[in-house]
Amino acid sequence: MAYPQETFRFAHVDATSLLGQRRAAASASMITYQLQILKDTGRYDAFSLKWQPIYDKVPEYWPIADHLFWDSDIGKWIEGACYFLQGESNPNPVVDGAIKELVEMIRRAQQPDGYLNIHYQVVEPGKRFTNLRDMHELYNLGHLIEGALAHNQYYGNDLFLEPMLKYVSLIHRVIGPRDGQLHGYPGHPELEIALMRLHHRTGDEKSFELARYFINERGNPTGVDGREFYTVEAEKRNEALDWQPVWYPAPRSHWYQQAHAPIAKQDTIEGHSVRAMYLLTAVADLVRVNPDSTDLKEAVYKLWNNMVEKRMYMTGGIGSMKQWEGFGPDYFLPQGTDEGGCYAETCAAIGVMMLAQRMLQYDLSNEYGDVMELCLYNAVFTAMSVDCMKFTYVNQLASSEKNPSERFGWFQCACCPPNVLRLLGMIGGYVWNVSESKKSDPTQIDVHLYAPATLNFETSAGQASLKQECDWPRDGSIKFSLIGEKRYVQLKLRIPGWATAWEISPALSHLDITDGYLTIPAEYLALHPDFNLTFDLKPRLIAPHPLTNQQILTVARGPIVYCVEDVDNTWVTDHFRSTHLDPECLTKNAVTEIKTADPSLPDEIYVSITVHKAAYTVDFDRLKIKPSVDKEDLHKTIGAAKVIDELKFVPYYYRANRGGHGMARVGLKQWTW
Amino acid sequence: MAYPQETFRFAHVDATSLLGQRRAAASASMITYQLQILKDTGRYDAFSLKWQPIYDKVPEYWPIADHLFWDSDIGKWIEGACYFLQGESNPNPVVDGAIKELVEMIRRAQQPDGYLNIHYQVVEPGKRFTNLRDMHELYNLGHLIEGALAHNQYYGNDLFLEPMLKYVSLIHRVIGPRDGQLHGYPGHPELEIALMRLHHRTGDEKSFELARYFINERGNPTGVDGREFYTVEAEKRNEALDWQPVWYPAPRSHWYQQAHAPIAKQDTIEGHSVRAMYLLTAVADLVRVNPDSTDLKEAVYKLWNNMVEKRMYMTGGIGSMKQWEGFGPDYFLPQGTDEGGCYAETCAAIGVMMLAQRMLQYDLSNEYGDVMELCLYNAVFTAMSVDCMKFTYVNQLASSEKNPSERFGWFQCACCPPNVLRLLGMIGGYVWNVSESKKSDPTQIDVHLYAPATLNFETSAGQASLKQECDWPRDGSIKFSLIGEKRYVQLKLRIPGWATAWEISPALSHLDITDGYLTIPAEYLALHPDFNLTFDLKPRLIAPHPLTNQQILTVARGPIVYCVEDVDNTWVTDHFRSTHLDPECLTKNAVTEIKTADPSLPDEIYVSITVHKAAYTVDFDRLKIKPSVDKEDLHKTIGAAKVIDELKFVPYYYRANRGGHGMARVGLKQWTW
Repeated sequence: MAYPQETFRFAHVDATSLLGQRRAAASASMITYQLQILKDTGRYDAFSLKWQPIYDKVPEYWPIADHLFWDSDIGKWIEGACYFLQGESNPNPVVDGAIKELVEMIRRAQQPDGYLNIHYQVVEPGKRFTNLRDMHELYNLGHLIEGALAHNQYYGNDLFLEPMLKYVSLIHRVIGPRDGQLHGYPGHPELEIALMRLHHRTGDEKSFELARYFINERGNPTGVDGREFYTVEAEKRNEALDWQPVWYPAPRSHWYQQAHAPIAKQDTIEGHSVRAMYLLTAVADLVRVNPDSTDLKEAVYKLWNNMVEKRMYMTGGIGSMKQWEGFGPDYFLPQGTDEGGCYAETCAAIGVMMLAQRMLQYDLSNEYGDVMELCLYNAVFTAMSVDCMKFTYVNQLASSEKNPSERFGWFQCACCPPNVLRLLGMIGGYVWNVSESKKSDPTQIDVHLYAPATLNFETSAGQASLKQECDWPRDGSIKFSLIGEKRYVQLKLRIPGWATAWEISPALSHLDITDGYLTIPAEYLALHPDFNLTFDLKPRLIAPHPLTNQQILTVARGPIVYCVEDVDNTWVTDHFRSTHLDPECLTKNAVTEIKTADPSLPDEIYVSITVHKAAYTVDFDRLKIKPSVDKEDLHKTIGAAKVIDELKFVPYYYRANRGGHGMARVGLKQWTW
Repeated sequence: MAYPQETFRFAHVDATSLLGQRRAAASASMITYQLQILKDTGRYDAFSLKWQPIYDKVPEYWPIADHLFWDSDIGKWIEGACYFLQGESNPNPVVDGAIKELVEMIRRAQQPDGYLNIHYQVVEPGKRFTNLRDMHELYNLGHLIEGALAHNQYYGNDLFLEPMLKYVSLIHRVIGPRDGQLHGYPGHPELEIALMRLHHRTGDEKSFELARYFINERGNPTGVDGREFYTVEAEKRNEALDWQPVWYPAPRSHWYQQAHAPIAKQDTIEGHSVRAMYLLTAVADLVRVNPDSTDLKEAVYKLWNNMVEKRMYMTGGIGSMKQWEGFGPDYFLPQGTDEGGCYAETCAAIGVMMLAQRMLQYDLSNEYGDVMELCLYNAVFTAMSVDCMKFTYVNQLASSEKNPSERFGWFQCACCPPNVLRLLGMIGGYVWNVSESKKSDPTQIDVHLYAPATLNFETSAGQASLKQECDWPRDGSIKFSLIGEKRYVQLKLRIPGWATAWEISPALSHLDITDGYLTIPAEYLALHPDFNLTFDLKPRLIAPHPLTNQQILTVARGPIVYCVEDVDNTWVTDHFRSTHLDPECLTKNAVTEIKTADPSLPDEIYVSITVHKAAYTVDFDRLKIKPSVDKEDLHKTIGAAKVIDELKFVPYYYRANRGGHGMARVGLKQWTW
């Protein structure tokens, strides 16, 4: 089983190309920037268990205290920092010292029986494990465990892992199927992933048992004396029937946390999108270990398909409903928060990547690889500034006056920034994979992402390295070099679904493409250890499903989805709501495609695309809607549109880096009149 | 000032035409059907103040007990029944007896100080006036007052009115601007309307003072010791900060009840749509009495315009958000509950009619008359079955598997059915109006609706009657006859905005059309007391604003909006989601327009419209969305659509009367490929 958190160590990503540049920027600034914020906000010292004034504050989102996720913020930062330290020749002593101090605080904070939680040790002592549904104790533990695993990997000691195993042992006593135990499961899944990894690393059986129990027990309608756990738990707390957290559309909306039915019986992807992705990632991990659990495996496919086909934005973002930070009904995908809803949380897109990475290991198909890459370069990359010090939580596809296109330094609920940090830290593990199912000769390397990187691996005959040289995705050409042992290596290269023209050189005598992965056999590699794969990255137009009622198009080039911004198109005043795009815009007149950089960001090379006289603005103010309009009047108004001489598109990830008035939009209305 | 509740007595509506038929059916069946339900559900006996088992029940919608609106159900039924009794030569003795018994119970139930409320006298004694925001005490009183006014009008006694005046006197002591009084206002506006009418009928000054206070105090951010009333009230109840009724998207969302700002400072129409309409109707009433209140008058215009231009469905329905039964953001108007939201509550459409009727009295413009008629025949009429014994609460424009097109016998919260009853009872008052501003000669009759009816009125020279003969809106021709005094009468006839072709015969020598109302001068009437007005009702296509992102069209004919149903178009399986309509469908091939009736409903004549080979179904299953599709593939799939030989439209109000599988849709995707 290959976890990117483990395998990234064998892959070195150069500081070039879009991916390499962002990883380098994260290394240079994101780690220390986030550390400073941890210190400034009280998070850093929280495991000292001293009272902080913020604990008295009325929470921004009742009933969740503002500090409730601090444990996880610490865990995720340590995790991310350790990934970056691992590859560095001169580790930053400030970062190293902070990790050591934090671990020391955590060790001291742990109670003798293993319990460890900032909120319940400081603010509400005596109430531990009374609200698994909302209070994130188990979620926090999950992130601490993942931090401890990274710490163990880098430092080679058990200083952080040992208290985690002790805490797991406590949970294993408290929660489980036996009489006297709580028959519960985490309100926010994450611990399940961590436990599977903890078991993978240490062989700890309690971890595996707990993970399996959480997954199988979840949504059991008769788990506690014939009733559902969260309902019984709520009654024990004397929770009034009219009580509801602000993100519940109704009291006891347990679909919010994917607990409305056992996972195998869930037909559509529902509720909070990050929870859904973390849960399914853990389910996929369990399925990989227990390939017999066919009902769970079918559920993963079913929910994935529902998501990708009906509930995902063109950018890879998921979740249109702000209230529950999650999925709306099928095809409900407005582009903006002010147009009916658009959430597309950063962590959720990272979760999609996690799930896709797992699915690729039991089903090597470009369907998963394509979505993984789409999320990375669009829904995730749009969530950080070029300098890696500003972030978004919500990634709408269209701005509005109320919700302009912008980024922020931090968030009260700060799950996203350190999640980006750890993703970039381990990103080498997403690039490729030594295929599990082919442990026998030849060793098979599945290449999911193209990036300037080198992978070191073992073959039956000895060490080998696979090197990619490229400027992906700005440029479509990748040079592969197999170094060292060549006779026992086979490659599977992803041919993205969008790639209509590509070539390999020297040519392959026989093209074997299965589920979008091209086989490069050992015989070819023995003859041609250096070869080139080249994709034609010519711009194309993409659209969402017509049932989304958007009737929009946007430009895409390779894996990159484009948007328009007011900083380039200064005439705009309405966030491009009335801007229409000719479906023939890419063929009709000349299209300008320039590899360029802006003066303010000279190192940030990107490809801009400009369409000429093939976009229009409609003067909607001419329409008198009371409350409808005659078709003739509508067509007349739209027919009187103004031609836009030049409409310039830039990559969606690049938005909000160059000033402007916060106007940006991915999908433009299709001009069909 | 003309209230339809008063003026309907001077107008007799014949039992023919669509409007007359529905009114007659209501008279024949709706009154007694609803009386029986009042009895079966415990409402009828509730003012006996005996405990009922339902009072123990866990409410369906916390914290609102299921019986909380019972007072208003009784009030509205009495009101509606009295309107019908008024015009009848043989009043139904059962109805008459029930009204008398109910009034007797109400009189006995009233407490010595004037207080009267089922919930607070039986279930929570001692808690009166502690939750004006949620508990509907004042709303209930409003509907009881309107019942009492109708009772007084029909019976000519004060048996019901007297206890109401006593209760108002109590409220006047308890709530108001003075020290020691509650500085509050009703959570659900309605009492304001009732008080204005009570003052109008009786001259009671306390009623007027209270109404004015409620309207002016509403949303005052500093009303109670520098703070907002509902917040202070909530704190007095020790309401937790995380507490929220299920329909609040966040605790203390006071825009839900239009109390987020003083009315004059509200820029957009927000929150619960019925509350918004009742409130603005009362504001309009106050403005009519106090024409100097220009800031309130401007608010009425501003909020009306925002509603009609950006937040109203093509059917006249308002409110897309189920959670708060109200308005979404501008242009957010999905057609179905399963497509993102569509509420369009029946009572809200009745509220739009109320408001429009008021606005017509200070601004005679077809903008208000058109919307009033649109709501009547579409958003309201679709809410009752042909036999007037089944109803809807939510009036979506498109069905889905989860929310099929259907009607119900009753509702736990039963505001809509008796609201339809009282509207039909007084509908004659909506048809026309003796213009206030023209009390001098000649007497001006403003004709807003066309219907087979006779209006009796006074002129300075004596009695006159205006008679309309027509089969509107099935037929576009209306014969007017002025009977009696003719020399001192002037008419203003509404020329609807949709009417592109019409004629008057004998011809007018000079056409004076101001704001969509045609003047028929006294000179003409003296010469031609009988004349004809004929509108060409040829079908047309209408569309909502493009920013609704619907890209739909539907057929309209006169004021009637059409829909398609599976009972006529039996091939449909997907609720017409993939059905597209050619924008040239009405001119391209022959269109069949038939005045017809179905065998199961032989008396229900309607005009059906069938388009031939000008609609298409697209096989969306061919699209592989992961999560977008290339424009070429999209166009190929849509281009491969199947032509529908015949697509039959029926009036939207007629849906769900003939069986079928509950599939219906108003707007069909525009075919533009």
